[in-house]
Amino acid sequence: MDERRTVTLDRRLADRRTALSEMRVVIEAIAPQIDDGRFAPKRTPGEPVHVGARIFADGHDVLRAIVADRPAAPGGTDAGAWRATDMTLVSPGTDHWRAAFTVSQPGWHLFRLAAWVDRFQTWRRDLRIKSAAGQRVTLELLEGALLVREAAERAIDASDPAVERAASAADRQWLLLQADLLSDSGADVDRVGIGLSGDLDQLMRRYPDQRQATVSPVLRVWVDRARARVGAWYEFFPRSASPDPARSGTLREAMAWLPRIADLGFDVVYLPPIHPIGRRFRKGRNNRLTAADDDPGSPWAIGSPAGGHDAVDPGLGTIADFVAFRGAAERLGLEVALDLAWQCSPDHPWVTEHPEWFRHRPDGTIAYAENPPKRYQDIYPLDFAGPAWRELWRALLDVTLFWVGHGVRIFRVDNPHTKSLPFWEWLIREVQSRDPGVLFLSEAFTRPAVMRYLAKAGFTQSYTYFTWRNTKAELIDYLAELTQSESAEYLRPNLFANTPDILHAYLQEGGRPAFEARLVLAATLAATYGIYSGFELCEGRAVPGTEEYLDSEKYQIRQWDWNRPGHIQELVCRVNHIRRTRPALQFNDSLRFHDTDNPALVAYSKADPDGRSLILVVVNLDPRYMQHGYVRVPLDRLEQPADLPYPARDLLTGVRYDWRGEWNYVRLDPGIRQAHIIELRHP
Amino acid sequence: MDERRTVTLDRRLADRRTALSEMRVVIEAIAPQIDDGRFAPKRTPGEPVHVGARIFADGHDVLRAIVADRPAAPGGTDAGAWRATDMTLVSPGTDHWRAAFTVSQPGWHLFRLAAWVDRFQTWRRDLRIKSAAGQRVTLELLEGALLVREAAERAIDASDPAVERAASAADRQWLLLQADLLSDSGADVDRVGIGLSGDLDQLMRRYPDQRQATVSPVLRVWVDRARARVGAWYEFFPRSASPDPARSGTLREAMAWLPRIADLGFDVVYLPPIHPIGRRFRKGRNNRLTAADDDPGSPWAIGSPAGGHDAVDPGLGTIADFVAFRGAAERLGLEVALDLAWQCSPDHPWVTEHPEWFRHRPDGTIAYAENPPKRYQDIYPLDFAGPAWRELWRALLDVTLFWVGHGVRIFRVDNPHTKSLPFWEWLIREVQSRDPGVLFLSEAFTRPAVMRYLAKAGFTQSYTYFTWRNTKAELIDYLAELTQSESAEYLRPNLFANTPDILHAYLQEGGRPAFEARLVLAATLAATYGIYSGFELCEGRAVPGTEEYLDSEKYQIRQWDWNRPGHIQELVCRVNHIRRTRPALQFNDSLRFHDTDNPALVAYSKADPDGRSLILVVVNLDPRYMQHGYVRVPLDRLEQPADLPYPARDLLTGVRYDWRGEWNYVRLDPGIRQAHIIELRHP
Repeated sequence: MDERRTVTLDRRLADRRTALSEMRVVIEAIAPQIDDGRFAPKRTPGEPVHVGARIFADGHDVLRAIVADRPAAPGGTDAGAWRATDMTLVSPGTDHWRAAFTVSQPGWHLFRLAAWVDRFQTWRRDLRIKSAAGQRVTLELLEGALLVREAAERAIDASDPAVERAASAADRQWLLLQADLLSDSGADVDRVGIGLSGDLDQLMRRYPDQRQATVSPVLRVWVDRARARVGAWYEFFPRSASPDPARSGTLREAMAWLPRIADLGFDVVYLPPIHPIGRRFRKGRNNRLTAADDDPGSPWAIGSPAGGHDAVDPGLGTIADFVAFRGAAERLGLEVALDLAWQCSPDHPWVTEHPEWFRHRPDGTIAYAENPPKRYQDIYPLDFAGPAWRELWRALLDVTLFWVGHGVRIFRVDNPHTKSLPFWEWLIREVQSRDPGVLFLSEAFTRPAVMRYLAKAGFTQSYTYFTWRNTKAELIDYLAELTQSESAEYLRPNLFANTPDILHAYLQEGGRPAFEARLVLAATLAATYGIYSGFELCEGRAVPGTEEYLDSEKYQIRQWDWNRPGHIQELVCRVNHIRRTRPALQFNDSLRFHDTDNPALVAYSKADPDGRSLILVVVNLDPRYMQHGYVRVPLDRLEQPADLPYPARDLLTGVRYDWRGEWNYVRLDPGIRQAHIIELRHP
Repeated sequence: MDERRTVTLDRRLADRRTALSEMRVVIEAIAPQIDDGRFAPKRTPGEPVHVGARIFADGHDVLRAIVADRPAAPGGTDAGAWRATDMTLVSPGTDHWRAAFTVSQPGWHLFRLAAWVDRFQTWRRDLRIKSAAGQRVTLELLEGALLVREAAERAIDASDPAVERAASAADRQWLLLQADLLSDSGADVDRVGIGLSGDLDQLMRRYPDQRQATVSPVLRVWVDRARARVGAWYEFFPRSASPDPARSGTLREAMAWLPRIADLGFDVVYLPPIHPIGRRFRKGRNNRLTAADDDPGSPWAIGSPAGGHDAVDPGLGTIADFVAFRGAAERLGLEVALDLAWQCSPDHPWVTEHPEWFRHRPDGTIAYAENPPKRYQDIYPLDFAGPAWRELWRALLDVTLFWVGHGVRIFRVDNPHTKSLPFWEWLIREVQSRDPGVLFLSEAFTRPAVMRYLAKAGFTQSYTYFTWRNTKAELIDYLAELTQSESAEYLRPNLFANTPDILHAYLQEGGRPAFEARLVLAATLAATYGIYSGFELCEGRAVPGTEEYLDSEKYQIRQWDWNRPGHIQELVCRVNHIRRTRPALQFNDSLRFHDTDNPALVAYSKADPDGRSLILVVVNLDPRYMQHGYVRVPLDRLEQPADLPYPARDLLTGVRYDWRGEWNYVRLDPGIRQAHIIELRHP
């Protein structure tokens, strides 16, 4: 018998307000739930939801608890059958119960807990104790017969369409027979045997009396498609695909780059905004305040007479070109992510068509963006809480759905923390209620509470502080927060190793070994990571004293030689291949750090969800010098006896080491290798 | 100007559903609240409620947050004015805000948070930055004038009865003048001075624009009278006041004991059940299964032909005698607590009048209490979740109100964890809605989750595991849990040092020094503590191998010589006097333990709420041997410079020690003294 199907939740419970007197059982501290159910934890299909709760009642009766779950119907209605899983009391002293279920399709998945006093199990426990103590149990046997007869009645309730259980006339007959035997005139000792029999126990569990059950509120889990959890992202400016530096590359030209990106093993290609760019107050090369006539401007200054957020920059091509680009990517196994940057250049059509969507100053001008004393005169913020908010929000939803209509199902959202937080909750819900497979990546580098709130409010993934966490202690602390704290239930980190805005000093100064180290860290610490193009070339030239790229593609058209000496494309390709073939690297929750005797060596492991192997990563954080030392292998995770040798195979090089015991030696020499990605198999 | 009155909460907010677009501010993680507001934290009049929350919005605007509080009207209606207190951002990195208010009268006290984007403060901050940077601010000054004019309009809203603020025509005129000056043609620099003036700031804070405020749900605090927080309890069996051991003492005779109890400094006299005692299956002396004819039986086997829970045992007297006893106690400053033990002897009138309130067996008999294989045939449990639960619950409420009607406002509740948990929540709410000053002490020695739930559900105080916490580590761990964990918000410990059921081996074996140590611990670790009579005589004779008293008063009538050698009544009197005169000992939250260099010496301190002094207690936990060593005095709590000498006065002996620095020497010798209660005053 499938353990998960031994009992179902009587659907009548869902609608019934249990009488106060009947709710003897208390269910509290249910996990996972975010802010008492206001928000939902996130999963992808096939992932388990481990449910825990404190469950107790007065007195000493035996309790039974189940968690019932089901996908919400696509329309959000309450159709669909509840699947019930028995919960287990794991810690009697703290009344902690738990169970797990697995989610399947994208969309809302519902669960609720029910718990009740199990009169038969209580009776059975007491019967065993009393008969063992030699007490007379004649009355007890009659009481048991009554309980069994009641269960038999429940076994024919199948005619009631409200009851979701596979009732059986055979079960009923068998239960009635047991009841007769229990109340028979036979010897007590024989009847005790019937009362304690395993068969009776099994069948009684199948037809429990849930009339006095306490039922929790319905709680939700949001299920995204798998790409929400795992993926390797590649960001590039399509206009840099131009063979002529004097003009923008086109989307058609950028298509030629896609095979290389696919060969490198990436899953998502993310393009900065592809819309027409404003002319007024356009920024020049290296962020100069005035642009030369041939400066193309920042793609984030959106809008010109050629169109706004639903148009393609004429230099890049047309909507048809974008559709062709997307199709080419998909044929290579690449998904295209677009940028949502809700701001306008002074030349955006909305400035004249919908001036009410902007904030006006006493002289009638539109307020540009400011962070006093800094001024951003090329950007007009939209007024998300202004008098015309309804029409504005609707228009932004329409833009999003426009791109969804053109096949875009991943959006990278620019600076969401500077736009109304309720807006995001609304927008994402509106889009995902139409297509639960649309994903949103939050680019909010701000305070933890705000980053977390955006994730709770609906963002699928979030940028992180990873670029600024470079020492061993920083990495250990921050990844523990990202993968082991409550926020891991709803905030999925996307570890970009660089972005057009962030070229960390570690990369500027560390050269190729630094790029190697950060690539391996990003790609193995988190199931989702990304690089901005140029990383694979170890491009490290910055505007001095800043994290800005020198001659940044944000403000000018660049040309790249993908075969330029010193690149690390073989490593990128190898790492992405390992990620694809090793499920351990496709999840975050199993990440654990391990001791090393050298502060420049960071070591951590992730376990295969099937429990067959462990991926152990060791990275030399020092891009300059050889570092060696001993790493403490987590033999407990591996169930590896400490006294036997075992093979440790480096998936980057294929080299096999013979290790023994906990502490094993590693040596990582910049210029030779910066990291090990070692596979350890269960013996 | 009273800082707490600078702004009020616009009452219209309470009813208004703020438009989604307007709620830019998020308020989350509000504390204190228990189980997301399902239950309430507890306070007594004069105690502060420290409110904290994470509050943030999109972008970089200046926020303002208030907590508004008021007593709920007696009838529970929404009358009464909200008092507003400004919250302070205490940790910008975590967006943590806080404020405090003080509760006054017993009953429900309500609070809610409101937070909004403060457009004027944002404007003022930016004006300061821009003008300091030498930027032209002409437009900004006009914008400021508009904000000030809007505030002036709010200053005449006093005609609107929905607005609870002291609006002022003078304020309005002054604000209009400032607005005129800001939009005047004067020099920018002068107008900037007006915009940044402190006077304008003050008045603008008084008339904020709360239209787009985010308002939290209303949260509750339960306010008990002070006796809920602080008190010394004394338990005794009134039938032991008999001059003739062959008959029960009467309540009139027990009155003669009250002056001694009052002189000892107790506040509450708690009597075990005073009702008629059943005859059938009555327990004999020392819990024998059969009683002799003259055995009086256990007072917890309630009910006989003479009556049930609303009657007085004829041996003790009449209701009139109880009223006289209560009056005599009150004249001595003693309050009388009665026992609520919801169970019946087989002779209880309800057994025949209301058989439907009990569980019946197949042979028609009523089920007696069991904990298999143990049987308690003298006790019939009531069926709290049975078919007649409504009438039963009502009858139990009537019994409680009967005693409230006879002046009883404290109840000690017997084994509440074996009765329906929802019943308690209902009963206590019903009683306290009639008289919020009625207090309930929970006698539930069970698992932490259940003990805590009873406290959350309404019990004023709870018995604890204190009797079983005797080592230094046990005391430190357990008191930290009781006074520093979240449960301290709702579970008030009552540290009974002994009970008729619990005479711990430490007392049985340790003799007088053990009683001294446990008295000082109970009386100074918690604001509420108690002893069961005999403790002051160091009565330590037990049924061997158990924690039961030998010849327990539970089953027989005893006689006591209160002047018997070896008593510790002077110490009890002294300790209770110190408790009454030192507010530090009347609260639990300031308890901190301190290092000693001797594991037999436990040291802790409590701070006077007015911050003037510290009570430092040092107890020798070893009842046999002299223990001495060094104690680390918390000079930081005292703001005492480490290099100056300071006086340490022992309030038990009046002896003054001259201490210097952190570590000071103590010596505690059983037979001389077992503890110091030292007062340290701020320099």
